[in-house]
Amino acid sequence: MPSALCGLFFVAALFASGWQYGLYGLLGASVATATAYVLGVDRTIVEAGLRGFNGCLVATGYAVFLGPDHASTVILAIGGSVTVVMVTSALANILGTWNIPTFTMPFCIMASVMTVAAPSFQRVWHGGTDLAALPTAATGATRLSWDDLWHAFFGNIGQIFFMPQWYVGLLFLVGILVASRTAAAMACVGSVIGIFVAWALGSPASGVAQGLMGYNAVLVAMALCGVFIKLGSWSFAYAVIGAAAATGLTAAMGTFFAPFGGHTFTWPFVLTALVFVAAVPSFTRLSRT
Amino acid sequence: MPSALCGLFFVAALFASGWQYGLYGLLGASVATATAYVLGVDRTIVEAGLRGFNGCLVATGYAVFLGPDHASTVILAIGGSVTVVMVTSALANILGTWNIPTFTMPFCIMASVMTVAAPSFQRVWHGGTDLAALPTAATGATRLSWDDLWHAFFGNIGQIFFMPQWYVGLLFLVGILVASRTAAAMACVGSVIGIFVAWALGSPASGVAQGLMGYNAVLVAMALCGVFIKLGSWSFAYAVIGAAAATGLTAAMGTFFAPFGGHTFTWPFVLTALVFVAAVPSFTRLSRT
Amino acid sequence: MPSALCGLFFVAALFASGWQYGLYGLLGASVATATAYVLGVDRTIVEAGLRGFNGCLVATGYAVFLGPDHASTVILAIGGSVTVVMVTSALANILGTWNIPTFTMPFCIMASVMTVAAPSFQRVWHGGTDLAALPTAATGATRLSWDDLWHAFFGNIGQIFFMPQWYVGLLFLVGILVASRTAAAMACVGSVIGIFVAWALGSPASGVAQGLMGYNAVLVAMALCGVFIKLGSWSFAYAVIGAAAATGLTAAMGTFFAPFGGHTFTWPFVLTALVFVAAVPSFTRLSRT
Repeated sequence: MPSALCGLFFVAALFASGWQYGLYGLLGASVATATAYVLGVDRTIVEAGLRGFNGCLVATGYAVFLGPDHASTVILAIGGSVTVVMVTSALANILGTWNIPTFTMPFCIMASVMTVAAPSFQRVWHGGTDLAALPTAATGATRLSWDDLWHAFFGNIGQIFFMPQWYVGLLFLVGILVASRTAAAMACVGSVIGIFVAWALGSPASGVAQGLMGYNAVLVAMALCGVFIKLGSWSFAYAVIGAAAATGLTAAMGTFFAPFGGHTFTWPFVLTALVFVAAVPSFTRLSRT
Repeated sequence: MPSALCGLFFVAALFASGWQYGLYGLLGASVATATAYVLGVDRTIVEAGLRGFNGCLVATGYAVFLGPDHASTVILAIGGSVTVVMVTSALANILGTWNIPTFTMPFCIMASVMTVAAPSFQRVWHGGTDLAALPTAATGATRLSWDDLWHAFFGNIGQIFFMPQWYVGLLFLVGILVASRTAAAMACVGSVIGIFVAWALGSPASGVAQGLMGYNAVLVAMALCGVFIKLGSWSFAYAVIGAAAATGLTAAMGTFFAPFGGHTFTWPFVLTALVFVAAVPSFTRLSRT
Repeated sequence: MPSALCGLFFVAALFASGWQYGLYGLLGASVATATAYVLGVDRTIVEAGLRGFNGCLVATGYAVFLGPDHASTVILAIGGSVTVVMVTSALANILGTWNIPTFTMPFCIMASVMTVAAPSFQRVWHGGTDLAALPTAATGATRLSWDDLWHAFFGNIGQIFFMPQWYVGLLFLVGILVASRTAAAMACVGSVIGIFVAWALGSPASGVAQGLMGYNAVLVAMALCGVFIKLGSWSFAYAVIGAAAATGLTAAMGTFFAPFGGHTFTWPFVLTALVFVAAVPSFTRLSRT
């Protein structure tokens, strides 16, 4: 979203969740943008913020998962923000064959490699030793209280940047609203679908209330109705189906990553949006933006 | 295989393995076909049954793995049969770049996501809690009795639809024979190769007898000699190598899926056929149909 | 590298690590080359050794991981060397769309399937039963002695062919030097970067000294400066970043493979080089060879 005001709200939201995260976000965006300039990426792409965006996500993600207060985290955040430019360009060149955007896949790749690799390095990893576990069937109450519901509604938006606080989600939502009223409406629709599907299938309430089951639905709903596919009642229905599918995929990917200690990040959004956008040329009812 | 009579035998085989599975198969095929019509997929593709086929597999697979008697399974089977249309169209658009068919990959994706996600949802999952396990080296007798042998021969065909009963495999084989004598012959060749390779490498007899080691060899043998590659002595040899490779890959994928509780489905067929079909343009001895 | 003398040194290095490995290497190269001829692959490709190379790696890899003294290993090495020709051709046809080479990906695929499948087959597997384990955080001293350092320097080159002995690495390095002075220089640069990054991040010294952390950095450094990207100060810097990224990815892939008992092989090299080469068209500072 190439809106300066929107970006301002996003930065404010990051600072609201902790001033270090705001600094990491600015650091990552700067390093990635500088790397793209230096390597000679087309200036129109760089100026639209398309290379800095993934750098911002990478640096913030590294700060959240490795701890923001270590010098090693700063160095890795810089290294990651440089490398994500290569990953983004590679994916753009490959997916461009079918006119498919890279979504947040570059970030997901960099963040997944980091979380899986980090415990092998003693100067990087300051957490515990029990990272991996065989997954088991879910247990725990599934009933959602009123408090769970509205926490989940905003948490689904905050978790896009790995933040569970409701007010961080609210700030992101305001940022989206400033950029596009349609996108903000679809974010709300996606959040409601994520909550409904997770509840209906029987997901434990504690995870739902933190926004862990619905943040991919929010992103998919925005992407499939207005951002990458033209707005309309058909794309609205398409986005609803996509948001429901992304909620199921969120659970699947959490289980997939468990035995080797990875994290889900926005992989379910990336994979669902990639499939639903790649399918559009086959459907005469839908067209790309 | 666009033969109505063949389809009739397949439906009969599904009903023979349990009337609910037959109903699920019809439900999935109907929902997927309707979804494709509504979204505006090219009618010649829909009428050839190319979209309904994966819906049939998805709904039957969900019934087998979640249990056919739950309302939740019916709802998920409908949702899965809708979503598989998007997955099929996306894969067709991407793989079409190299003129590679989608095989049963859309089904494999939907079924894998379902089996991995299901235990996270308490209203969906009615099985046990110990789903995942670290794989260990195989033990158990490898000697095949006469009974093991002929059970394995038909089981290899029935397992394509996850059914171990020999008479279900026989009904499928008759259905294939009605559509194409070459395909039926290659199904038998694939089944024999699957049994021979599994026995020669030392696979425990119990799995071989249930058809668990050879169903991918059956599919690969059919796909590589007559269906996607022109019939001939070169493609026959190519199909034999492919069927042997698929048998090894079947063991590898079972081990890969073990720690997060996934299932092999027809992934080994899909991946082997994809590689062997994608390689054809490099080989002057072979040509696509 | 289409240099006959270079090939001679490589064969000598294999024989130095054990005469059986040398024979396996020759066997694999012969079988793969013969398969490519018989199937009718373009003769200029076969004569450049591009199909035999992966066969050599596959047969040697099977010998190392299954034990060279079993008849079953010989048979599987022949089967693997036949099948790798299909995998190489398939990947060449698909990656050729973006003018991306296949690197050692065909070998990595065949070797990964073999190591994951082998324990399921009793006549193939002669090792123990405890193959898979949940990964944990690394422990152990990270300080590198002088002996560790120079062992690591040559071990990083020998591990490309899974050999930890320093003199095997030295022989490979001489073979590379005979083919290209640039490539040999970049191999040394890559080895130094691999050691430095692994030490700086805090990798246990025992693995670093055996060359287990740096062999992918060696391959990436050679590939990105001179072999696939034109030599220059920009590509040198690009190769340095790539070698550092590959070192981190080496740790990540070791953890990823742990729960199902796979091995890292040269996957980190393949994936890093693929991304960095695919990104080149976006960077005006760099161009392909």
